[in-house]
Amino acid sequence: VREHLPVPVSWRNGAVRVLDQRALPHTVKYVECRTVDEVCNAITSLAVRGAPAIGAAGAYGVALAAAQTSSSASVHAAAARLERARPTAVNLAWAVRRTLDAYDEGGADGALDAADAIAADDVAANEAIGRNGLTVIPEHDGGARVLTHCNAGHLATAGYGTAIGVIRAGYDAGRVQHVWIDETRPVLQGARLTAWELHELGIPSTLVVDAAAASLMAAGDVDMVVVGADRIAANGDTANKIGTYGLAVLAKHHDIPFVVAAPWSTVDLATPDGRAITVETRDPDEVTHVGGTRVAPNGVAAHNPAFDVTPAALISAIVTEHGVARRPLAKSLPALARR
Amino acid sequence: VREHLPVPVSWRNGAVRVLDQRALPHTVKYVECRTVDEVCNAITSLAVRGAPAIGAAGAYGVALAAAQTSSSASVHAAAARLERARPTAVNLAWAVRRTLDAYDEGGADGALDAADAIAADDVAANEAIGRNGLTVIPEHDGGARVLTHCNAGHLATAGYGTAIGVIRAGYDAGRVQHVWIDETRPVLQGARLTAWELHELGIPSTLVVDAAAASLMAAGDVDMVVVGADRIAANGDTANKIGTYGLAVLAKHHDIPFVVAAPWSTVDLATPDGRAITVETRDPDEVTHVGGTRVAPNGVAAHNPAFDVTPAALISAIVTEHGVARRPLAKSLPALARR
Repeated sequence: VREHLPVPVSWRNGAVRVLDQRALPHTVKYVECRTVDEVCNAITSLAVRGAPAIGAAGAYGVALAAAQTSSSASVHAAAARLERARPTAVNLAWAVRRTLDAYDEGGADGALDAADAIAADDVAANEAIGRNGLTVIPEHDGGARVLTHCNAGHLATAGYGTAIGVIRAGYDAGRVQHVWIDETRPVLQGARLTAWELHELGIPSTLVVDAAAASLMAAGDVDMVVVGADRIAANGDTANKIGTYGLAVLAKHHDIPFVVAAPWSTVDLATPDGRAITVETRDPDEVTHVGGTRVAPNGVAAHNPAFDVTPAALISAIVTEHGVARRPLAKSLPALARR
Repeated sequence: VREHLPVPVSWRNGAVRVLDQRALPHTVKYVECRTVDEVCNAITSLAVRGAPAIGAAGAYGVALAAAQTSSSASVHAAAARLERARPTAVNLAWAVRRTLDAYDEGGADGALDAADAIAADDVAANEAIGRNGLTVIPEHDGGARVLTHCNAGHLATAGYGTAIGVIRAGYDAGRVQHVWIDETRPVLQGARLTAWELHELGIPSTLVVDAAAASLMAAGDVDMVVVGADRIAANGDTANKIGTYGLAVLAKHHDIPFVVAAPWSTVDLATPDGRAITVETRDPDEVTHVGGTRVAPNGVAAHNPAFDVTPAALISAIVTEHGVARRPLAKSLPALARR
């Protein structure tokens, strides 16, 4: 069992270093981004993915621009490019703007300090999310059986993880015994990343295809669903990896708690509800191909929405570093902002 | 557009010929089974799959045994092996027993006549299912948008298809305009087979990952779900490809008709309800690998149930060649047997 997982995003020798998540689980290697365009490309190509992790990458991207030019206009233009690299996760825009504000006040040193703080704060927030999450894990003999989708783990953040943070804290406290991992087509973040992470951490887990979740619930083998988030609107509506919404409907049908775990940087109080969230549509080749191999016949159309929106009414609780928001989320979530 | 799709199962030159569905969509080739073991292997390895198609393959397997030996005990032993090749679809046991009865009465000629009749009857039944299915397609401007899972088409039967039979008849009648195809992990029958079939037939369709179905429903883009079946219990509970049950829950949540289409040979009045249906668990490698390539890390456990069971209460209608059973299915389904 590995004690320390590799650092997903960091500043190394004047460059932004990201763990190349496209190469996992077979190879642990890094992409060194020496220009802002290389940072943008690492984000759009999913070398780095996960809302908090792309936030950290965006922040270091601003610091990189600030280190390379004395033109404030160039740094602002670079920040605008970084902010647009992916549309759905609000953490990216939040982190880029916070780093840009620090640059405006304190120059290149201020920007790098801000990016370092964003990364360090994210790890601390995730550890707090793990502790706060203990209160939402249902009682079950021997520990709860938890299902998760995509990867909201160490790899998706600056470290430790959000949904997997709750699982890690729960496992360490003897409150979680086993994890069902949705493989999460099309990019297979569950099969490639979450399975790897939990295996490295020594947490018992079993991989299933996404379509198997319903029958596990019907069999009584799932005590809780926990997922991360890419953007949480003011009323609690939550954008997350495609398939999350279906899991929430299934959890409601089977009377299973459905929990979202995310740092406060994912909450976007300026977005009133889910209808205002832009859902990214990605290349259809992600659906027609698997691992570079074409599986569907030539000439067949595919539709590839990367995210869906789960209405607040289907969410049992949102766990943040500031505490746990419970239903009705439209009241409890903004109240957490005051802490 | 191809008028005639290749024949999935047939008797050719004293052998059982099956279209090799593992090679689709890239290659159209056949497996010639010259022994009963080769027929069993074609069934277990999914060279031939789909409940009615493996029924026809099992029937021709008995005819093959009968043609190759004068020992009645050997033919009965071969039938027992064929019947056990896969456990969930009842059509296999039904077709093997019917052909064995014909053998006991009429020898090798009787067995081959029975197998030919099973195949021909299946095509006629599917065409009748298509006609009967027109009554369950909802009205929608320009035709209904239909979602299907797995492949319950020409390839899954002796010809024409069951769920896709309803879609074909509906499209020909101007009642269906577009089909959403679930890719259907782990074996990707949707991406490889249904996408190929509908493309060959010129029916407009779009491929999505299984986890995208819920958001299509939420967006109002799905008017009906139609699937096939591997075994239908007397009360209407239906075993079908893993993921079917989840779609039925989602359809109910979104108030979308959920329709099962299957020939009467799939109905098993001897099985009282879904709890009595054996669900096959297949090799975890189907989950950890895609197209021969390992996607999950070494040492990770996977669970691979091939089917799930949808309770009758979630099924709007079951379309058979004898007519349409509507809720309550526990009454209407056995009533169809009398026709």
